[in-house]
Amino acid sequence: MPDSSNENRPDPQATVRALRHSPEGTKTCTDQVAEECPVALVFNGISHAVMMATPTDLEEFALGFALSEGIIENRRDIHDMEITFHADSAEIQLSIAQAAFVKLKEHRRSLTGRTGCGVCGTESLALLDLQPEKVTAAPSIAVNHAALLRILAELPRHQPLTQTTGCAHAAAWCTAEGEILRVFEDVGRHNALDKLLGWMATQAIQPQDGLIFLTSRASYELVRKAARLNIPVLATISAPTALAIRIAHAAGIRLLSFCRTNGFVEYPKEMPAV
Amino acid sequence: MPDSSNENRPDPQATVRALRHSPEGTKTCTDQVAEECPVALVFNGISHAVMMATPTDLEEFALGFALSEGIIENRRDIHDMEITFHADSAEIQLSIAQAAFVKLKEHRRSLTGRTGCGVCGTESLALLDLQPEKVTAAPSIAVNHAALLRILAELPRHQPLTQTTGCAHAAAWCTAEGEILRVFEDVGRHNALDKLLGWMATQAIQPQDGLIFLTSRASYELVRKAARLNIPVLATISAPTALAIRIAHAAGIRLLSFCRTNGFVEYPKEMPAV
Repeated sequence: MPDSSNENRPDPQATVRALRHSPEGTKTCTDQVAEECPVALVFNGISHAVMMATPTDLEEFALGFALSEGIIENRRDIHDMEITFHADSAEIQLSIAQAAFVKLKEHRRSLTGRTGCGVCGTESLALLDLQPEKVTAAPSIAVNHAALLRILAELPRHQPLTQTTGCAHAAAWCTAEGEILRVFEDVGRHNALDKLLGWMATQAIQPQDGLIFLTSRASYELVRKAARLNIPVLATISAPTALAIRIAHAAGIRLLSFCRTNGFVEYPKEMPAV
Repeated sequence: MPDSSNENRPDPQATVRALRHSPEGTKTCTDQVAEECPVALVFNGISHAVMMATPTDLEEFALGFALSEGIIENRRDIHDMEITFHADSAEIQLSIAQAAFVKLKEHRRSLTGRTGCGVCGTESLALLDLQPEKVTAAPSIAVNHAALLRILAELPRHQPLTQTTGCAHAAAWCTAEGEILRVFEDVGRHNALDKLLGWMATQAIQPQDGLIFLTSRASYELVRKAARLNIPVLATISAPTALAIRIAHAAGIRLLSFCRTNGFVEYPKEMPAV
């Protein structure tokens, strides 16, 4: 999968002049802020979506998006990918397998004359997919607080964009023992997850071998994307929504919430005797 | 504007059984989690978008969305609104003025056969609107750290959903002196802002009389929506993106970032002598 980039490739962050106000007074300084770049995803010449994203790791992002949105079934369905950076945006052209493209066009025909929003490409309730795939990889019950503590301790050094800008989310692939194997950052939590899912596909990672750790809340779309990629354990630093819990139950995903140094919370479908 | 609701109206939160793991052991308990409800926005019978939202204050939400997305110019362009709650979703039917509907259809015709994502209804870079309206209301330079401290101290008692679930954002309309006049909560930060903007429209609030305070980061879409509603001062607890700063500069919005008890940060277009 060639990465055809060019000289306009933007930095993930920008230097800006700032005024810092504090009780001691006002100081001028320079500050680092995260870029937020419109990234267009174009499948076989048809523009499909524009995501506001951190303009790094876009190959992984496009692959992960295509997989987690169900546009392709397999990474081999992408025959070619070309990334072009414009002055203040990026465009990813993907050539996908004919069968996948026919399915995408069928889906899009049903949307003719409509625009979508909020839930990727969904503009009417009838098309909203609240029935996730059943995850076949067995959730690892070995993941415990010791593993989460190890992740929490190590994660910051894998988050350079967050460290300098305070404005990014991270998605990490970790072993059940809490070793961090890969981290992706993005201003959008769903983009960070898509980048990680795309990388996992390129590495042929077995989902039952670990867990995904996210620095965000757990929303519908994150759990839905994880279900499509057969991820059995999803851990987040912040709270889940009720719908995220229901989707996790339906998919058979083990969802770990409020993963902090003082503990974590699970919302099992059936409460075990403890 | 009638609010036609029905008996299915969902709660903004749900009670779930939870397992709390801590170094002291595991306890079973009940927990409150935020609902995340698919809300379809239908204009003159045409389904336009589905947003994942907290299913409260949907009249304000629909009005704010229609205004902040530029679908209508004025709240009087909405002739009727009917909200229906289904088992696990909500639908908002809006009747809008013919001129606004013609404009919406023209815009949608240009999108025929495409789906949008990430940026409301935008599926190609050519349609992305990075040129905000110039805000004509003068930014209040009177907003200072004392006002922000007052907001920070008072805000939690206006956030019942956040207090019980830890899973919502808030958008507050405040005086320049830091008095909180109204707060809306939602699992989506842009939805919280749309609810507030809708309420401001119903109350005929003058934007130059105060500021909007958001508990989130400042992203492109939040500043873009504020510009469309002529909001001169936008304050956020967390970081801005570089694009949010550029849009604020272009619109003439005073953007206050990292609003915390120890100070706040501004990124002025032209640095004043200090």
